[in-house]
Amino acid sequence: MADAIRVLAMDGVEKAKSGHPGMPMGMADVATVLFSKFLKFDASRPDWADRDRFILSAGHGSMLIYALLHLTGYKAATKEELSNFRQWGSKTAGHPEYGHMPGVETTTGPLGQGLANAVGFAMAERHLAARFGDELVDHRTWVVAGDGCLMEGISQEAITLAGRYRLNKLTVLWDDNEITIDGKVSLSDATDQKGRFKAAGWAVKAIDGHDMGQIKSALKWAVKQDKPTLIACRTRIGKGAATMEGSHKTHGAALGAAEIAATRLGLNWTHDPFELPTEIETAWRKVGRRGAKARKAWEARLKASPLVADFTRAMKGELPSNAFEALDAGIAELVEARPAQATRAASGAALAKVFHAIPEMVGGSADLTGSNNTLVPDTVTLDAPDYAGRYVNWGIREHGMAAAMNGMALHGGVIPYGGTFMVFSDYNRPSIRLAALMGVRVIHVLTHDSIGVGEDGPTHQPVEHLAALRAIPNLLVFRPADTVEAFECWRLALESRGAPSAMALSRQKTDAVRVEAANENLSARGAYVLKAASAPAKATLFATGTEVPIALKARDTLEAEGVPTRVVSVPCFALFERQSAKYQAEVIGRGTARVAVEAGVRQGWERFIGEDGGFVGMTGFGASAPAEVLYEKFGITAEAVVAAVKARL
Amino acid sequence: MADAIRVLAMDGVEKAKSGHPGMPMGMADVATVLFSKFLKFDASRPDWADRDRFILSAGHGSMLIYALLHLTGYKAATKEELSNFRQWGSKTAGHPEYGHMPGVETTTGPLGQGLANAVGFAMAERHLAARFGDELVDHRTWVVAGDGCLMEGISQEAITLAGRYRLNKLTVLWDDNEITIDGKVSLSDATDQKGRFKAAGWAVKAIDGHDMGQIKSALKWAVKQDKPTLIACRTRIGKGAATMEGSHKTHGAALGAAEIAATRLGLNWTHDPFELPTEIETAWRKVGRRGAKARKAWEARLKASPLVADFTRAMKGELPSNAFEALDAGIAELVEARPAQATRAASGAALAKVFHAIPEMVGGSADLTGSNNTLVPDTVTLDAPDYAGRYVNWGIREHGMAAAMNGMALHGGVIPYGGTFMVFSDYNRPSIRLAALMGVRVIHVLTHDSIGVGEDGPTHQPVEHLAALRAIPNLLVFRPADTVEAFECWRLALESRGAPSAMALSRQKTDAVRVEAANENLSARGAYVLKAASAPAKATLFATGTEVPIALKARDTLEAEGVPTRVVSVPCFALFERQSAKYQAEVIGRGTARVAVEAGVRQGWERFIGEDGGFVGMTGFGASAPAEVLYEKFGITAEAVVAAVKARL
Repeated sequence: MADAIRVLAMDGVEKAKSGHPGMPMGMADVATVLFSKFLKFDASRPDWADRDRFILSAGHGSMLIYALLHLTGYKAATKEELSNFRQWGSKTAGHPEYGHMPGVETTTGPLGQGLANAVGFAMAERHLAARFGDELVDHRTWVVAGDGCLMEGISQEAITLAGRYRLNKLTVLWDDNEITIDGKVSLSDATDQKGRFKAAGWAVKAIDGHDMGQIKSALKWAVKQDKPTLIACRTRIGKGAATMEGSHKTHGAALGAAEIAATRLGLNWTHDPFELPTEIETAWRKVGRRGAKARKAWEARLKASPLVADFTRAMKGELPSNAFEALDAGIAELVEARPAQATRAASGAALAKVFHAIPEMVGGSADLTGSNNTLVPDTVTLDAPDYAGRYVNWGIREHGMAAAMNGMALHGGVIPYGGTFMVFSDYNRPSIRLAALMGVRVIHVLTHDSIGVGEDGPTHQPVEHLAALRAIPNLLVFRPADTVEAFECWRLALESRGAPSAMALSRQKTDAVRVEAANENLSARGAYVLKAASAPAKATLFATGTEVPIALKARDTLEAEGVPTRVVSVPCFALFERQSAKYQAEVIGRGTARVAVEAGVRQGWERFIGEDGGFVGMTGFGASAPAEVLYEKFGITAEAVVAAVKARL
Repeated sequence: MADAIRVLAMDGVEKAKSGHPGMPMGMADVATVLFSKFLKFDASRPDWADRDRFILSAGHGSMLIYALLHLTGYKAATKEELSNFRQWGSKTAGHPEYGHMPGVETTTGPLGQGLANAVGFAMAERHLAARFGDELVDHRTWVVAGDGCLMEGISQEAITLAGRYRLNKLTVLWDDNEITIDGKVSLSDATDQKGRFKAAGWAVKAIDGHDMGQIKSALKWAVKQDKPTLIACRTRIGKGAATMEGSHKTHGAALGAAEIAATRLGLNWTHDPFELPTEIETAWRKVGRRGAKARKAWEARLKASPLVADFTRAMKGELPSNAFEALDAGIAELVEARPAQATRAASGAALAKVFHAIPEMVGGSADLTGSNNTLVPDTVTLDAPDYAGRYVNWGIREHGMAAAMNGMALHGGVIPYGGTFMVFSDYNRPSIRLAALMGVRVIHVLTHDSIGVGEDGPTHQPVEHLAALRAIPNLLVFRPADTVEAFECWRLALESRGAPSAMALSRQKTDAVRVEAANENLSARGAYVLKAASAPAKATLFATGTEVPIALKARDTLEAEGVPTRVVSVPCFALFERQSAKYQAEVIGRGTARVAVEAGVRQGWERFIGEDGGFVGMTGFGASAPAEVLYEKFGITAEAVVAAVKARL
């Protein structure tokens, strides 16, 4: 049965003349035992909520999962799909892509990400088990990881999280083949991985990854542990290949016709590419049906449960009908109250309005809870052994946090948000990108969003981060100007089921700018006229976040000097792009002197101000001094905005 | 003597009403022993090449290093500077900033970076010792790291590199105070750090960080090991504080007048802020002169050495006079030969022309040597115990590589370059940013720079990365179009002593576009007219890298149809910004129909094409299919460029 995986992997890659046969061939035995004896799944129902999750962290070995899905009878994993591996429009992308092929739980390829996602999957499972009970939620997360996954730094953040939270339903099957792309692992690494995992609080076992008996007893052992488990599977890369077995040459290229023919001979495999012997096909299909009975029993339990409606809603990712009642009521009050506060505090206030109304929300921070304003009063911490809490102390692990948040969102039933300083969005950028690529709802709370950080200096002051985040497709970057906008943006982020969000929030206090009631969520427009000109406008000022008050102040001066001036608040570039051309043109106001002010780099602002527009912002890194000194010294002032307008009139 | 550090730290933070007193107070004892007995330095000569390097990886504790520099008599570390902590224009920035205060070896603050820099320092030291001999190069690297540094994933990449390369002159002093910002370390972490470092190949010792005897014997032990060493220093955060010692409240805020007064009393410290008792001042100044004799002896050895000229030149970062002879000669040949090859191959060819001419160059790759074309034939690998080689197998550690490269460049005597896939510039972005902030010469070789990656799919296809990298201030992002431009860009990167470079290079083959000799390095202009129009231009096409041939093809069509069209190649946005306004205006060609083509997002291109310009590129993520199919499907074609021009005529 394992040879079927080997041959499919070899043939799929050969047909595409592109791909990675070595890993699937090496891990075929382990995967066969896992799928045929341990993994809880039903190939006919890839969406069964209580299925075990299988995460191929070593995503380049995608033919392993495609072969398994095909063999076990996933409807979408047809022979045609396999033979169209890596081609335009196929579900069998070069790396496993979430949303393309049912059975692929997450997009992997960037190494270490799948492993770190898996921590989120396993955490979500324990949390939901605490919420809904073991009879509805009781499944495991299995990860296949390679040496690359374990060498990446993110793996350390992931495994120490799993150890700390005693995620005993998480098992990593390490493809310990001693090979990387450049050659032997020993070329670049001498780590005692088993010792390392033990130090992180894992139970560890090492086996021969080609000995079916050893694999079986190791998996049996794993499910009994009270800690996360690592099984080091010593394998031969490209196992079965006639002459290339064990060589790094099998890692990332087709084996070639001659090698494949010789390998077929060696495996005694007489069938054509993508054809299977009947008895092997039958055996694998049976594996695919193994879980049907358990799935049906679970469905009956769900139907009989008093929690069926809530569970179903949560897993679908739908919000409670009253999710935004308190938030919307809050907006009306804010327009009157006009609080001057940092937008991070505004974000905290928004959270307080929605967190208890949306039980799927699970928050956290990378050790900056007080600074990020991510902890809602009366929230219990998620911890072992009671995972019912809804706040995660992620530790100083921005990257691990972001990747685990992706896993939580992908698992379903959880809407994760997590905080860190905005400058450290560089640390978790690879996971933010994957969230955008997969289109999952995770919310990044990025406080300390400009030189307004002050004394901590340039290492802690984002300058290019707004531009860099806006450059990521399908990421909603919000920069609210005050508490009303913060409330609106939080609503938009929570409603955004197909895209992650990043909230840029200030450390420093800022005035309220939305002082009139609106009959819609204005931030949903991406950009809108916050304050009209007193007469046909001669100037338009664009601003975001804490720079909106600067624009308003500049407007006062200009209006007093007889220059009718509009102020446009731009809380979200991406949402503005979704508006009609007519609306966009109205907001942009060509023919007026256009100036934007944002305490970041100019890149991207020409969309609003055109080629000749003025930009008041940063041209380099910040500095260490009190925030108000920095705004003055870097010239981000109402006076500078006024001067830029005048230069253009 | 340690109390002097405590009081200065406390007073500096109090004066600024901002900063982190807890760490300096906790590590004062360890630092006192290190500086007074072990660290090889001479306060009067911060630039002594053979000094030990002291790296404060826990950069928030900056008052520790400022206090030490002041106490030991560094000229720049005056009382005034200390009392201007964190103020505009002072050398005592909130986090230690390289280039502000002599004695600060690297900019730290983003956690884990200093530790990973230190690996590069230690590697550079061993390499230069192999090149110049122990009599000129024989020093240690000492790191103070906190729990945050060790929780960050980058620390795993760093410590496994140090273990693999047996960097026995590297010692990490871990401030094991069991406290993070949010509270106890145990809130978020249960890692056995000692076990973890052992698994990475380190020698490990745990001590009471307030017991001078234990500190001394541990440091003595460290210098004798044949591996890198971790000393776990169990300390009390804010040690000495009257009531707040041991509390996370001392971590990141001023202690307040009352607590400071009580602490003064407890320490029996009667002096005013920033005033020192004479005997303590004298004792510390003596510490600062401890190394003078060794320094003078070293200077004598250097003077007598036959290698004096080479050593001095290398440490100054000056290139050999014949550095570019072969490269420049190569350009002349290329204009004739017109090779069609991937620009990553072109980069490899450029490297082959300069690598042996510039002995300071040390290359490497994060396990993608064959793909990155970073290994020059006949290069020996840098390894233990013979560190003379000039190629580092970094393993699958993009972030650790980039941070270590920063350390190498900061150490001096080494010009590092390292390769990975461009999409993984997200993994090492925090270190690229710090290189830009510090202005150090490191060169990132980023191959597979677009959807031209093909079958590996969107996880491996940069789309937003050109924009995101261009957004970083002081980073030179090069995207050469062919071999001539690749040669030119390599020369510019190597000559760029004050800024790091990133080379975006294609996986796929591309035609030569520079087919005429030029009498200057045209890439130095950032953008230049590659092909003029046959008559006064009606259209201008801008392109970079592999899209330049598309622009040239579009020009052919347009010219044939009677539209005089210019093609501008844009190898480096940042260098274009340094040109005269006149030159910029000439190149940009307002009044012509302007269209840019680049297989990435539009953001930033308005600088060239204006608000109404056409852009042929990507609007979302890529897909998995052969490269030529992707260019067709995503509409990045000469036909699309022609259509965009016509729509604007």
